[in-house]
Amino acid sequence: MKFTRFTQGSTVYTGVIKDSNIQEIKGDMFGEWEFTGNSFSVADVKLLAPLEPNHIIGIGANYVSKLEDLPSELPEIPVFFFKPTSSVIGPEDEIIIPEGIEQVKFESELAIVIGKEAKNVPESEVLDYVFGYTVGNDVTAPQFFHQDGHWTIGKSFDTFTPLGPVIETELDPFAVKVEANLNGVEKQNSATELMIIPIRKMVSYLTKVMTLKPGDVILTGSPLGAELVGAGDTIECEIKEIGTLRNTFVLAKESVKSN
Amino acid sequence: MKFTRFTQGSTVYTGVIKDSNIQEIKGDMFGEWEFTGNSFSVADVKLLAPLEPNHIIGIGANYVSKLEDLPSELPEIPVFFFKPTSSVIGPEDEIIIPEGIEQVKFESELAIVIGKEAKNVPESEVLDYVFGYTVGNDVTAPQFFHQDGHWTIGKSFDTFTPLGPVIETELDPFAVKVEANLNGVEKQNSATELMIIPIRKMVSYLTKVMTLKPGDVILTGSPLGAELVGAGDTIECEIKEIGTLRNTFVLAKESVKSN
Repeated sequence: MKFTRFTQGSTVYTGVIKDSNIQEIKGDMFGEWEFTGNSFSVADVKLLAPLEPNHIIGIGANYVSKLEDLPSELPEIPVFFFKPTSSVIGPEDEIIIPEGIEQVKFESELAIVIGKEAKNVPESEVLDYVFGYTVGNDVTAPQFFHQDGHWTIGKSFDTFTPLGPVIETELDPFAVKVEANLNGVEKQNSATELMIIPIRKMVSYLTKVMTLKPGDVILTGSPLGAELVGAGDTIECEIKEIGTLRNTFVLAKESVKSN
Repeated sequence: MKFTRFTQGSTVYTGVIKDSNIQEIKGDMFGEWEFTGNSFSVADVKLLAPLEPNHIIGIGANYVSKLEDLPSELPEIPVFFFKPTSSVIGPEDEIIIPEGIEQVKFESELAIVIGKEAKNVPESEVLDYVFGYTVGNDVTAPQFFHQDGHWTIGKSFDTFTPLGPVIETELDPFAVKVEANLNGVEKQNSATELMIIPIRKMVSYLTKVMTLKPGDVILTGSPLGAELVGAGDTIECEIKEIGTLRNTFVLAKESVKSN
């Protein structure tokens, strides 16, 4: 099932998309919900990010280019980072390049949406806690990375986390490819089996540190091929079984470096 | 005014503390609220963290030991980090030391609570967006810092962010001292004028990166003197005008390194 949030006029709705039709639902997507009976045509609405995340957790440098490059030993402490929920935008929204710089990186990713509270979950049970999957773009301004290795500012600007277009609840996350097309040219296209720290291990590790909650989003890392882009460029992050998340880059009008 | 959250039985209440009495309120602490007419004795309730934060944002290594050591030039990119809201506990709750290690660090801090949506706020207007102040303990397991400088895991364990005992809305943040007493012995005691990146600059910078929202908590850094402690130790983080945040350390029963 493909869950979506959308607006028509000034009202925000939640619904289930099938083909070009959306059936509105009410209630808690992660718990009790029901169809309202209202339906909308996809062409008549504006899609939003399919959820308002509780947390956004990312993992760094998590893909190799080919299976033979997968390391025999995994790092003891993975590189995780948080992005603020204020950075979330939806399909077709503009990604704003902060003033003072002219380029940022796109990073197309499979995004896990947690559906149940999860603490100390063994790898074998991780998928029981996953509600579904969406596409994420972990937009990054490496110019704002701190020299000592802290990525926080470079990943936290408003508009830096496009999510969507839907949450697909029936996906096999081990049988999909994560793609990115820049101005129509393919830049990323990797099977998720090229992840260094695979999904079950990643989520299990996190649940041994922190209690994951419904609405937590885990960005599972980006395939090789991400690059710097500028104003006017259009990025399409895509996982065919979920959909295409398209956004265009624009320059900011205000500066983080002023004052 | 001193805002608090507390339980009596299994019900969670919000209120305003004066001396040993709490007047219950209903509504939005950051917006419209009113007294319900119910009152409680502090002795009869369990205080919780005084809010459920929207985000928790920390800043690294932000104090010098004396005014003469303040740098003439500030770093261009401050070291900010996020802690997950799942790490929040209240006064008297136990801080759990993750299995596999025997010690963690306490860090007593002045915590800013944002009360209004804030974007691109000049330094001169920052305090207009502050709802109040509480005491935070930025508990840290440096053993889980990644060698490349990422602090995320080492700061994200459940119970690693005690907050409380109250949010004081009438504080002058430039006229207080941040203290910590370990098993009754003073370990930290610095005036907030020893911050390297002062409050107005810190918050203004953040608002040029991200839209701050009501309930965002900013931990403003810890004075010199934080140290590693173990099971059985009791830490009291204190800002006299706000109150004392006391917690005891215990060992975990489950391990992040198992599986």
